[in-house]
Amino acid sequence: MARPLSDRAGSSEHRAASMDIPTRDAAVACDRSDPLARFRDRFAIPEGTIYLDGNSLGALPVATADRVAKVVTAEWGRDLIRSWNVNDWMHMPTRVGDKIGRLIGAAPGQVLSADSTSVNVFKLAAGALRLRPDRRTVVSDRGNFPTDLYMVQGLSDLIGGRCELRVVEEGEVASAIDDTTALVMLTEVNYRTGWRHDMRAVTAAAHAKGALVLWDLAHSAGAFPLDLDGCGVDLAVGCGYKYLNGGPGAPAFLYVAKRWQDTLAVPLSGWLGHAAPFDFDLAYRPADGIRRQQCGTPPVLSMAALEVGVDLMLEADLAAVRAKSQALIDLFLARVEATCGAFGFRVVTPRDPAARGSQVSIAHGDGFAIMQELIARGVIGDFRAPDILRFGLTPLYVGYADVWDAVETLADIMRTGSWDRPENRRRGVVT
Amino acid sequence: MARPLSDRAGSSEHRAASMDIPTRDAAVACDRSDPLARFRDRFAIPEGTIYLDGNSLGALPVATADRVAKVVTAEWGRDLIRSWNVNDWMHMPTRVGDKIGRLIGAAPGQVLSADSTSVNVFKLAAGALRLRPDRRTVVSDRGNFPTDLYMVQGLSDLIGGRCELRVVEEGEVASAIDDTTALVMLTEVNYRTGWRHDMRAVTAAAHAKGALVLWDLAHSAGAFPLDLDGCGVDLAVGCGYKYLNGGPGAPAFLYVAKRWQDTLAVPLSGWLGHAAPFDFDLAYRPADGIRRQQCGTPPVLSMAALEVGVDLMLEADLAAVRAKSQALIDLFLARVEATCGAFGFRVVTPRDPAARGSQVSIAHGDGFAIMQELIARGVIGDFRAPDILRFGLTPLYVGYADVWDAVETLADIMRTGSWDRPENRRRGVVT
Repeated sequence: MARPLSDRAGSSEHRAASMDIPTRDAAVACDRSDPLARFRDRFAIPEGTIYLDGNSLGALPVATADRVAKVVTAEWGRDLIRSWNVNDWMHMPTRVGDKIGRLIGAAPGQVLSADSTSVNVFKLAAGALRLRPDRRTVVSDRGNFPTDLYMVQGLSDLIGGRCELRVVEEGEVASAIDDTTALVMLTEVNYRTGWRHDMRAVTAAAHAKGALVLWDLAHSAGAFPLDLDGCGVDLAVGCGYKYLNGGPGAPAFLYVAKRWQDTLAVPLSGWLGHAAPFDFDLAYRPADGIRRQQCGTPPVLSMAALEVGVDLMLEADLAAVRAKSQALIDLFLARVEATCGAFGFRVVTPRDPAARGSQVSIAHGDGFAIMQELIARGVIGDFRAPDILRFGLTPLYVGYADVWDAVETLADIMRTGSWDRPENRRRGVVT
Repeated sequence: MARPLSDRAGSSEHRAASMDIPTRDAAVACDRSDPLARFRDRFAIPEGTIYLDGNSLGALPVATADRVAKVVTAEWGRDLIRSWNVNDWMHMPTRVGDKIGRLIGAAPGQVLSADSTSVNVFKLAAGALRLRPDRRTVVSDRGNFPTDLYMVQGLSDLIGGRCELRVVEEGEVASAIDDTTALVMLTEVNYRTGWRHDMRAVTAAAHAKGALVLWDLAHSAGAFPLDLDGCGVDLAVGCGYKYLNGGPGAPAFLYVAKRWQDTLAVPLSGWLGHAAPFDFDLAYRPADGIRRQQCGTPPVLSMAALEVGVDLMLEADLAAVRAKSQALIDLFLARVEATCGAFGFRVVTPRDPAARGSQVSIAHGDGFAIMQELIARGVIGDFRAPDILRFGLTPLYVGYADVWDAVETLADIMRTGSWDRPENRRRGVVT
């Protein structure tokens, strides 16, 4: 199936860069000549930490602390209620949304920053079902992040027989779409494996059968170039706190293609999606355009932090980000093979750059304890049951030498067996 | 209809205090002997401002800036993803919820901080309807804040014939409840007029007909003592950014009485409401207790700010807060009568303290321009179309002399006609 040209270009470029890193000195040299290396100081990475979990919680941009402090003390504290006008809090959700739009290939007026990813899935899935009233199936796959499936399960319970969720294997999505399919709902990049769908092809396959698509961009937005408009995507949601570096629990976003905005029903019809919220009419009348998808009052402090992360990402060339992330993954895998071959790891992430996102996952039966030991030694990734060690390779604050050192640490842990300690078996609330 | 004793006590106490403020010196003396006056310095009120809009956006607690900065730089920046465990971000929604519970008369385990008020209305109204499957009417009143009505309109559209919203006059709620009523949904204090429902009586009337109640506490929580458990309330929602001083767009909260928690359906069934979110099952299985009402990842920065506001409110004696707010309202009205009698204002808020909240509203045909002039002179209230000037009297940072001075400013504006300028007719996005 066809891939957008940018991906191909990205993957051939990175190969040139990554095939030739035989030593740590070579990795350091790659960092020195890396045009993205200048972004490293824009993030507050703790000394001694190699942070490879930006796929779960993006690192803190240095500029965020000042911006949030200003919003707290000057905008809230000094300007008080007037800030809705004078500091334009009112337009934050569309302003930040439009900025995210530039990262995901969406023309202005189609993206809104609002609520959580889960809530946005509910909004758009409910709306989509009403655009296809003679169909009731939502097709998804087992690689989707569970909350997306849960939200549609809840929706299905709520609206009775008008919705049925069908969850298939990852490779079988296209063949599962038929003329009963109202909506195809997928997370583009698998949160466990890093496996990446072909957005353009799946979207075309859905449209060929008269179905709509809803893409979850949690592991895509800010990780590589996207072309939602160009792929003809109908609906999308995404996360603010991963590759957009918006902070813990940052507001999510949603995308509704222009052509659907006036007909897509709004199940969560709140006052800030009203055509004239300050008329305080008793009857709901939706605003024009994307704004009707807004519901309640935006969390201004959290959204201000998100805007800093998005602004920073807009400074970078996403094609370069993509190329470097693939080179980092290749380096990671090459080093794991070179140093950890004897320790029983299984590579989970595809070797083909076109078929993966910006994380690399390896599996091991003692993965949990191994990850705890890595974290104790300052290499922060995360673990997903039953056996996956995930490493997010985020090119703005992770370099070639970081990847080299991370795998060296892993190899040392395995050689010495230092992961095998009782304290590494203890699980927190969040694993 | 019976009122809780605390209200009666509150209103008789305050009368003693407020009946005897004939001069500004007397107002200053009241402030000097006011046990709540010590809270004033805990808020960052700008010099020269009398802030009477805490019913729309509560003022900034001094402690908030440091707390938010710490969450940004130390918890997010330094501890990164580990903060979900080491800084217990995971339990913020229930921890903050339980603290709010202490302000609203809810035993632990019944309140969750989450999402927006609008989204929470949707969750609980949808759940309530399924607890009364043989009934389809939601009774509300014209004084409800529109978003609550809008959310139920959206819900009704979504679930087809299973829900019908019936909006009656404010005084006619009890008589509108019958054996077709599934849910009575009201905002306790009218956002325009300050008129207050009798929560205990309306709840009893609903229960007598077999209906459930859903109270919106947007203008109640943090404004006066509440007794949700004691009143037998089923469900409630409320706002974090008004009387709880949680900051712009602060997360909202919801209350589900213990007895309903295991049977109330969860329409927004997100992963953090799952019994074991980090098992990443494909099928939703609700958590025990209030946690199942959580949906997506909480906005940590905004919720940290909310917690500071709630902690501060917990230091105050809410009965004293209530008594002082009523004394301030009486003083405000007495001064308006004494100084503005000739200018055509109409008092909108009830004279009876038992029938009002913590705001005072007066109406005037030129209210918008008058309010703009007041704001220009440092007295910040707000305006609600068509003619209402609203003043939130928040006892922790508003004193007797403030009220005296605010009305003196109003009287001067009216005497001199200084409100009647073109710049006072210009409207912002937010009025």
